[in-house]
Amino acid sequence: MPTGELRSTPLPTANHNSSSSSEDDAWVWAQIKAEARRDAESEPALASYLYSTILSHSSLERSLSFHLGNKLCSSTLLSTLLYDLFLNAFTSDPSLRSAAVADLRAARERDPACLSYSHCLLNYKGFLACQAQRVAHRLWQQSRQPLALALHSRIADVFAVDIHPAARIGKGVLFDHATGVVVGETAVIGNNVSILHHVTLGGTGKVGRDRHPKIGDGVLIGAGATILGNVKIGEGAKIGAGSVVLIDVPPRTTAVGNPARLVGGKEKPSKHEDVPGESMDHTSFISEWSDYII
Amino acid sequence: MPTGELRSTPLPTANHNSSSSSEDDAWVWAQIKAEARRDAESEPALASYLYSTILSHSSLERSLSFHLGNKLCSSTLLSTLLYDLFLNAFTSDPSLRSAAVADLRAARERDPACLSYSHCLLNYKGFLACQAQRVAHRLWQQSRQPLALALHSRIADVFAVDIHPAARIGKGVLFDHATGVVVGETAVIGNNVSILHHVTLGGTGKVGRDRHPKIGDGVLIGAGATILGNVKIGEGAKIGAGSVVLIDVPPRTTAVGNPARLVGGKEKPSKHEDVPGESMDHTSFISEWSDYII
Amino acid sequence: MPTGELRSTPLPTANHNSSSSSEDDAWVWAQIKAEARRDAESEPALASYLYSTILSHSSLERSLSFHLGNKLCSSTLLSTLLYDLFLNAFTSDPSLRSAAVADLRAARERDPACLSYSHCLLNYKGFLACQAQRVAHRLWQQSRQPLALALHSRIADVFAVDIHPAARIGKGVLFDHATGVVVGETAVIGNNVSILHHVTLGGTGKVGRDRHPKIGDGVLIGAGATILGNVKIGEGAKIGAGSVVLIDVPPRTTAVGNPARLVGGKEKPSKHEDVPGESMDHTSFISEWSDYII
Amino acid sequence: MPTGELRSTPLPTANHNSSSSSEDDAWVWAQIKAEARRDAESEPALASYLYSTILSHSSLERSLSFHLGNKLCSSTLLSTLLYDLFLNAFTSDPSLRSAAVADLRAARERDPACLSYSHCLLNYKGFLACQAQRVAHRLWQQSRQPLALALHSRIADVFAVDIHPAARIGKGVLFDHATGVVVGETAVIGNNVSILHHVTLGGTGKVGRDRHPKIGDGVLIGAGATILGNVKIGEGAKIGAGSVVLIDVPPRTTAVGNPARLVGGKEKPSKHEDVPGESMDHTSFISEWSDYII
Amino acid sequence: MPTGELRSTPLPTANHNSSSSSEDDAWVWAQIKAEARRDAESEPALASYLYSTILSHSSLERSLSFHLGNKLCSSTLLSTLLYDLFLNAFTSDPSLRSAAVADLRAARERDPACLSYSHCLLNYKGFLACQAQRVAHRLWQQSRQPLALALHSRIADVFAVDIHPAARIGKGVLFDHATGVVVGETAVIGNNVSILHHVTLGGTGKVGRDRHPKIGDGVLIGAGATILGNVKIGEGAKIGAGSVVLIDVPPRTTAVGNPARLVGGKEKPSKHEDVPGESMDHTSFISEWSDYII
Amino acid sequence: MPTGELRSTPLPTANHNSSSSSEDDAWVWAQIKAEARRDAESEPALASYLYSTILSHSSLERSLSFHLGNKLCSSTLLSTLLYDLFLNAFTSDPSLRSAAVADLRAARERDPACLSYSHCLLNYKGFLACQAQRVAHRLWQQSRQPLALALHSRIADVFAVDIHPAARIGKGVLFDHATGVVVGETAVIGNNVSILHHVTLGGTGKVGRDRHPKIGDGVLIGAGATILGNVKIGEGAKIGAGSVVLIDVPPRTTAVGNPARLVGGKEKPSKHEDVPGESMDHTSFISEWSDYII
Repeated sequence: MPTGELRSTPLPTANHNSSSSSEDDAWVWAQIKAEARRDAESEPALASYLYSTILSHSSLERSLSFHLGNKLCSSTLLSTLLYDLFLNAFTSDPSLRSAAVADLRAARERDPACLSYSHCLLNYKGFLACQAQRVAHRLWQQSRQPLALALHSRIADVFAVDIHPAARIGKGVLFDHATGVVVGETAVIGNNVSILHHVTLGGTGKVGRDRHPKIGDGVLIGAGATILGNVKIGEGAKIGAGSVVLIDVPPRTTAVGNPARLVGGKEKPSKHEDVPGESMDHTSFISEWSDYII
Repeated sequence: MPTGELRSTPLPTANHNSSSSSEDDAWVWAQIKAEARRDAESEPALASYLYSTILSHSSLERSLSFHLGNKLCSSTLLSTLLYDLFLNAFTSDPSLRSAAVADLRAARERDPACLSYSHCLLNYKGFLACQAQRVAHRLWQQSRQPLALALHSRIADVFAVDIHPAARIGKGVLFDHATGVVVGETAVIGNNVSILHHVTLGGTGKVGRDRHPKIGDGVLIGAGATILGNVKIGEGAKIGAGSVVLIDVPPRTTAVGNPARLVGGKEKPSKHEDVPGESMDHTSFISEWSDYII
Repeated sequence: MPTGELRSTPLPTANHNSSSSSEDDAWVWAQIKAEARRDAESEPALASYLYSTILSHSSLERSLSFHLGNKLCSSTLLSTLLYDLFLNAFTSDPSLRSAAVADLRAARERDPACLSYSHCLLNYKGFLACQAQRVAHRLWQQSRQPLALALHSRIADVFAVDIHPAARIGKGVLFDHATGVVVGETAVIGNNVSILHHVTLGGTGKVGRDRHPKIGDGVLIGAGATILGNVKIGEGAKIGAGSVVLIDVPPRTTAVGNPARLVGGKEKPSKHEDVPGESMDHTSFISEWSDYII
Repeated sequence: MPTGELRSTPLPTANHNSSSSSEDDAWVWAQIKAEARRDAESEPALASYLYSTILSHSSLERSLSFHLGNKLCSSTLLSTLLYDLFLNAFTSDPSLRSAAVADLRAARERDPACLSYSHCLLNYKGFLACQAQRVAHRLWQQSRQPLALALHSRIADVFAVDIHPAARIGKGVLFDHATGVVVGETAVIGNNVSILHHVTLGGTGKVGRDRHPKIGDGVLIGAGATILGNVKIGEGAKIGAGSVVLIDVPPRTTAVGNPARLVGGKEKPSKHEDVPGESMDHTSFISEWSDYII
Repeated sequence: MPTGELRSTPLPTANHNSSSSSEDDAWVWAQIKAEARRDAESEPALASYLYSTILSHSSLERSLSFHLGNKLCSSTLLSTLLYDLFLNAFTSDPSLRSAAVADLRAARERDPACLSYSHCLLNYKGFLACQAQRVAHRLWQQSRQPLALALHSRIADVFAVDIHPAARIGKGVLFDHATGVVVGETAVIGNNVSILHHVTLGGTGKVGRDRHPKIGDGVLIGAGATILGNVKIGEGAKIGAGSVVLIDVPPRTTAVGNPARLVGGKEKPSKHEDVPGESMDHTSFISEWSDYII
Repeated sequence: MPTGELRSTPLPTANHNSSSSSEDDAWVWAQIKAEARRDAESEPALASYLYSTILSHSSLERSLSFHLGNKLCSSTLLSTLLYDLFLNAFTSDPSLRSAAVADLRAARERDPACLSYSHCLLNYKGFLACQAQRVAHRLWQQSRQPLALALHSRIADVFAVDIHPAARIGKGVLFDHATGVVVGETAVIGNNVSILHHVTLGGTGKVGRDRHPKIGDGVLIGAGATILGNVKIGEGAKIGAGSVVLIDVPPRTTAVGNPARLVGGKEKPSKHEDVPGESMDHTSFISEWSDYII
């Protein structure tokens, strides 16, 4: 298998999901370049793409800024402007790079379809949308709302991923497939969370400022789940695909269905593995889901 | 707050959701220009964008035609052609502008994340898709199906919003977030309706011509709701997020779940506020939803 | 009706859904050219588009390669490169053309909103995404993973349709509306299947290689349905819109709801028409769905 | 000869070089459309181009505005903006269309390589640069210097034709080949003049405002001729290719060489045909050029 | 010197200026790939460009077609269309490749500033314009005038090189610098000719069909020379920079000045080296040019 | 006159043609911004352009890098890559900015058609080509030939200005109009030189490395002049338009004609003003040019 060789390269340390040292970051970037070099050699038709996006750049920040600038530009928001914007943000705020590396690791470790770091860096719209949102978030925090929202609009158009620039997102987050994700203004997403496509973290009504969900660390949210209002999804909770969640979900429990109910019952819900956002088991609850009776 | 100043400018009249006089339209356009001027001054990086899309234009119609032409163009459908198409439509049919203004007001009044009219005009894919669909609808009515469908295709590609050009849409409609909305050929949407993302107004089977839902005035349809067939959603009804609705829903009632049931029961459903499409309260029914038992 | 004239042209043979002879293919291509010629004459504004995409090409393969190359290109993956890639694939593997023709027929016959073959060829993002995926699948089979995944990424960006290049797809498949469709790496889709938008054929957990659904011939999957894991959806089964399916569904039965249940009960489920993927009746089960009680 | 058929169509009136009635203009536009239709039929590969540039437009003004907008646009001066600019100019000032028609006739009648009006309209950079300059000149006269100069810059980049927007140009002017033509700010070019490529009508020094040549009606200026300073080239004069002219040239005489001398001598120069700008005989003077002694 | 290494690679045969066997062609293509590989390694910023234009292609024909398609395309003449056009021509007519190789050799051998074959292939506008003209010439011969002229127009816009598609050009021709070259419809250029920038091979008057110069084998034409009318420049003649030539020039003589005179006198002109088009000595005549008396 | 107001602003110091302090540079950049702001206000259609090219940038270097990146990019050499390249060069080597400022002053002071510094910065192809060449020259000196030549090729295509990256160019140089300028590999151009369009500083033959002209400080070279070989044009010399110069020209003398002769005779040539490159008087020699006898 042409992609197998590099996959066995051992990671430098055993456990570094949510935070990454500068050394780790360098290791991932070196890995990405090695992957791209291998692919460029085996596939000349792709070599130009790999050189322009990865191999011609001296750092992950530059590669990402280039790639996002060219993906998100339009005839009225030029790639040079966006490239500059991204590069300035990545240069000024090193935590943006660390977060990107943590997200790359998350995809590589949790998604069996993720063949390599470079695969994620180049092709995962969830990863790219998330990094661009982090830059938009930085602009938002600097009271540069109009620019943050223009960037937000481009991300929503290009990736069909709509995360408000004011939303706060942890590290080691995997937006898998990502199409159709909507995350509202006051939502908070913890570390090591995995969110599938079509997931909504939405508001309700026109009241208050703090009106969107708070997602704890290690949560797994299945495809098409809708979580509405300022509710709290506890650490390590699991939300079944297609669920509609309108109230709090305790830590390490599973909510499924429309309306969502706790597996094992409201009083004594079953507890499961600690970090489903990492283990990615979407259907462990099947046997317990009493009325699942096909 | 840098965006606060202009928000306090009083609206000229108290109530003008679904219709707007030419005077009101002028007020909104003036407001948009003032917002854009303020943002261009505070954010030089965005000034070029704001001048090209708003400040260089003499009217809302021209601004919209320019923005849509540049957003929807492709290498085989040039921006100049689309610009011409939009400008001709807006010039020939003033009701298109009124509808756009009513939609701008709807976003500004109902969506707490909508900071300004210009924010909606520039960045809301639901707003932009809806205005472009209205022009496609006009072409459809003029028996210019192939052109209407080409435009429809561009809207579906660029915004991931798929509204058939034959569908009829009222004024003051808010497509919030909008990604993934699908509206079929014979669907009708009333005035002051609010529709969240991933909502489907779909057909069923291959029978008949009139095979899609009819949505009454003031209806609120939650994220991910699927309404299928030639069913009638009564005025002011509310459809819960993620619901699957296959039969009629009476006015001012709430349908939730998959399959959807009326809150309060089929026989004597609870009645709620008159225009949920404006109040945007998605979860008022929680306490009454009997089996919502997390 | 301007589009009526050509619609009455009889198909050359009575039944040719899933396979198409070279002669049939030629008939469809001739039909497409005739439609495009008619539309170019009646709509000069669209003539340039119709000539560049259809009328200037000597074969369906060239037309499709041109159209896909121009739709999927980006500033770092040039249209000429993609055009070449598509043309080579279509030339080397005639079954790609047969599959495209079968899909065109599927759209034309099953979707009442499909006015003509050229309408589908030019405008149906589901059709276009599927043809591009077939080429990506071919690359995958040739162990050209990096190129297959780059193409996959473009399809997911441009059409918001995310079908893994390793997934196997039959002929005569209709992806209707298509936005938000996600199909995983080890999924298999049979012949004459119809799949609506927002449908997920997803994996679960990080285990195993074979972790995605297998969809039998003639299945109909309603909008927003989520099918997870290596489950088997039997021939001619019907999955209701918004359903969440986690276990096998027997042939010619209907599963609805979240979690999905069999209409008629688990023990003795009701049987329905043979090929719902062709008849496209999404709601035949309403009367039998016992607790559907609005 | 495939292009011969339409060439024999008689012109409506006998003599209409420098001025053209509205009726004549209509005839030329009809001719252009007929030519484009013929070419689109015989050459499908070009049909898309011909429809987008000519056949989809309702008037010569629109066709020219579209063509110039798309030729002269850049990533920072969008085609929609330029299209608008040109269309407004052509609509407000009908003499721009008359001048364009007169120039089309000039090319068609004087240049044996000009096969058709549409050939000139689409392909002659001298024709296109001249029409764009006329619009820039109009902006200049309206005291819109910055816009006029931006347009001037685009013309100089795209066509390598550098005519200052303040220069005044008559009707029925042929810029043949045109590459490298430079015409200064205070130059004046009469009616029915023919100017070959690399011709300079330049200033000298930094003095005065009126510092460029004045070219009389019917003058012919050969390739590479350089005319410097506020000198007067009399009506019907002929300037040999490669000549350097620094002082006045009397009407209907020929100046050749570097420095230029009058053929026949300074005292009694030979007189020639009345309108060399129309007859285009560049070398009639050979026998008389005494020292031409190869 | 980083570029020195490959320059010493010996050519396979001693003398092959004007014709090249298929084997020689393969050698040049291999050389081009080796050069591009070396440059891609030493200059990562350029690697993407080198892979897309050269290293991803399986033949010189494909590389040239890609490069010309992307250089000459416009918003109304797409790169895919032009790529197709070029590839078809190169595939159908192998003499186009031989001519290209001969021209590459000409540049490499005659121009001391030409560092490598790939340098010429990628960067020499004269080389690229000439190859594109050869394809236009082929279209012209096939009575596809409108397409040939559209291509001609693109070459004139993009490269500022204006060679009529009907002109006949030999092999081993070097258009050095090339900007401003104008070659008329009935001009003929022999083998191993070298033509500098701003050279005109022009017609005179509106008479006859055969009205442009005929340039013999091995001729050298200096910068800015203007040759007008159906005159014959004999084999191995040399035309001085800035000369204006209106009558025949005998073989192996030198014409200089405006008007041009033969060096050594009309009666007994000095003879010089056989193939100045190859030796490229522009000023050997200085000492003999009697009145050159600064 | 709308452009008059700012023109009277006094320059900070009296004489600073060829060198400029950092303070002077800041003054010029402030002036450019003031001009652009004025023009953006008076001409909304141009405001977007002025903001993107000038007003959104924090320094002249960034503005120039952006403008050149967008002007010179192509589908295979992206604007982001070029922008990066230019910005790096300008940041690493402050003399590039000083040279640009000196050139801006040269245009502003010598060319009566130059209305403002911003006019030159945005619109003068000679100025832009020269700044880009300086960056290419820097790459050349760093032994990055392939990149330097790729940039050279883009400059030659876009501006029709062909200056070899190895050529050395002084400060305060004005390339007026610039189309068709060709400067060879070993040419040297001094300070305060003015060079008109179509000027060639060419080599001769294939001999030696040092084969191009050396132009002294303050020289003025008229339009279309051709200077060939390793000849020396003395300080303050003047070369008449259209001249062909093959041997040295003494300081402060004037050479005119083809072949060029010294005004006043070879033995005792007339002397003129010290710095014709600044006074720009192209025709002071007329009265003395004995055989100029029209």
